[in-house]
Amino acid sequence: MARVALDLMGGDGAPEVVADAVAALDLDALDIDLVLVGPPTLAGELLSARGIDLDAHPRLTVLSASCGVPMVGDPLSYVRTNPNVSVLIAAGAVGAGAVDAWVSVGHSGAAVTAAVLSCGRVTGMSRPALAVVLPATLGPVVLVDVGAAPEASANVLTQFAMAGWCYATALGIPDPAVGLLNIGSETGKGDALRLAADTLMQDRLPALGVRYTGSVEGHDVAAGARAQVVVTDGFTGNVLLKGIEGAVGWAAHQMALAYGDPKPARAVVAGTATGDFAAGMLLGVNGITVIGHGAGRPNEIAACVRLAARAARTDLIGLTQRTFSALMQRTR
Amino acid sequence: MARVALDLMGGDGAPEVVADAVAALDLDALDIDLVLVGPPTLAGELLSARGIDLDAHPRLTVLSASCGVPMVGDPLSYVRTNPNVSVLIAAGAVGAGAVDAWVSVGHSGAAVTAAVLSCGRVTGMSRPALAVVLPATLGPVVLVDVGAAPEASANVLTQFAMAGWCYATALGIPDPAVGLLNIGSETGKGDALRLAADTLMQDRLPALGVRYTGSVEGHDVAAGARAQVVVTDGFTGNVLLKGIEGAVGWAAHQMALAYGDPKPARAVVAGTATGDFAAGMLLGVNGITVIGHGAGRPNEIAACVRLAARAARTDLIGLTQRTFSALMQRTR
Repeated sequence: MARVALDLMGGDGAPEVVADAVAALDLDALDIDLVLVGPPTLAGELLSARGIDLDAHPRLTVLSASCGVPMVGDPLSYVRTNPNVSVLIAAGAVGAGAVDAWVSVGHSGAAVTAAVLSCGRVTGMSRPALAVVLPATLGPVVLVDVGAAPEASANVLTQFAMAGWCYATALGIPDPAVGLLNIGSETGKGDALRLAADTLMQDRLPALGVRYTGSVEGHDVAAGARAQVVVTDGFTGNVLLKGIEGAVGWAAHQMALAYGDPKPARAVVAGTATGDFAAGMLLGVNGITVIGHGAGRPNEIAACVRLAARAARTDLIGLTQRTFSALMQRTR
Repeated sequence: MARVALDLMGGDGAPEVVADAVAALDLDALDIDLVLVGPPTLAGELLSARGIDLDAHPRLTVLSASCGVPMVGDPLSYVRTNPNVSVLIAAGAVGAGAVDAWVSVGHSGAAVTAAVLSCGRVTGMSRPALAVVLPATLGPVVLVDVGAAPEASANVLTQFAMAGWCYATALGIPDPAVGLLNIGSETGKGDALRLAADTLMQDRLPALGVRYTGSVEGHDVAAGARAQVVVTDGFTGNVLLKGIEGAVGWAAHQMALAYGDPKPARAVVAGTATGDFAAGMLLGVNGITVIGHGAGRPNEIAACVRLAARAARTDLIGLTQRTFSALMQRTR
């Protein structure tokens, strides 16, 4: 059993789309206890309209929060000054051990802030990173960071490598190889940041039992042949992730024309949005935090909940804490 | 008529693959005079084996060069110290006005060095940039830089924006909009480099008649809706370009499975490699320089030659020089 808190108030289509996601989830089959975080009366009404009796449901409860994060103004300072906002209540439930994980598809910066404030950072991790799982040709690839840290140092990239390795391991990828995203696979390629990060990763990762394969290139991310964890700064990772999404959309459009039938192409694109691909896992905080697309549809939000439960069952946080603890002992 | 020099000695499959490309080109129909750059005896033998009589061909000549750039060691210093290397002879022919453009699919850094040494930089352009044309859903998009300048300043990115705008204009894209590749389209998004570049582009580009649309995101590159010229540093651009290539390959694989027939999917992928997509245009040097994939097949190399001829006919260099001259007068 996994206990997952879901932010009712976050996302472009909240709260209706989030309620649709709840209705789409078979909590019994998934063995998930779901805690909806938002105004209780609103939650009851939304679920009732979808044929769900909140009071009688054995798997579904509500944790009261007064509001969501407004998308206008300064969402981060709003989180810091409004203790009753849904992301703080949800992340706080994880921090207090009342639930095992939480999910939001609202403002991602606000969710990161709430997670850091309520759960704290993993000791040894300077800043959190957002990781996604991409359905590469030869098996899933973890890409980290996709936007939490647009500017990163070699030390931060090395931490991201370790956190990404923990995530891949928790996902069940055996002995995942870590690659540094670069513009060539030969030694000596890349900008100053990549050169420094390559040296640091060569020095630190093998001693922790993390297999480091050196530099990988953009095409390796979709192939999945050379590394199962691809590490980069949040600027490059965000551009690459969105670029891949755009390219898959372009290809689907071209394929629909080439084959004269759009349906299979649409199914391939839809499949990428409902697997693990839909969800960002925030790494480096002491609580499982899943951040999905703001424009996520109900089945995409449901995929985020499933991923959160999966990470809770495989003890992502414990593995991350032990890995960083080993690093701290070595570099002390 | 356009006169194009082609490096016989560059590329993974050189010189055989380059000779295959020559055999694949209908120079009469294209109205191209082709100058093959390499050892004359070798050139004659390779063409003879493909049924082409070099001495009798009205469109085909050879310019003597002793060798290509070795892929081992230090290719850049090899170029600087070997005046008879094919890239220097080919670029030199452009610099001297003997031909209008040159093409190499060999070591790209060596080709950039040869172009700068032999043709010189455009006044006002601090360093050259490599641009590609992507077949976006709503029409072609110029992406610049894809690897010539892994580290760039705001000033350099603004120069890349201008050079990319000139290239898009020379390609016949009417009133191309320029966008800065970023991790969000709202003002204030991005790292320090993007914030500074956004301010500088807002200040400089409109005064030169260049339409600047602000920040665009990774998915906009494959969509082509918001900008026809997308500007970024060479690190991000290289990762994104290869990421898009990888994603299209992944999608083609998935589509082949979904449709139960790989042929149309393969045709879509092959189409991206033989259009303008195959070739990088080096911007900011005073001579048309096309740099293709080292692993390019004959039809991809032939596409590079066609693109070089097209840029020569539309006076890419003259337009670039006039645009930078206007900038220099304004900022003096």
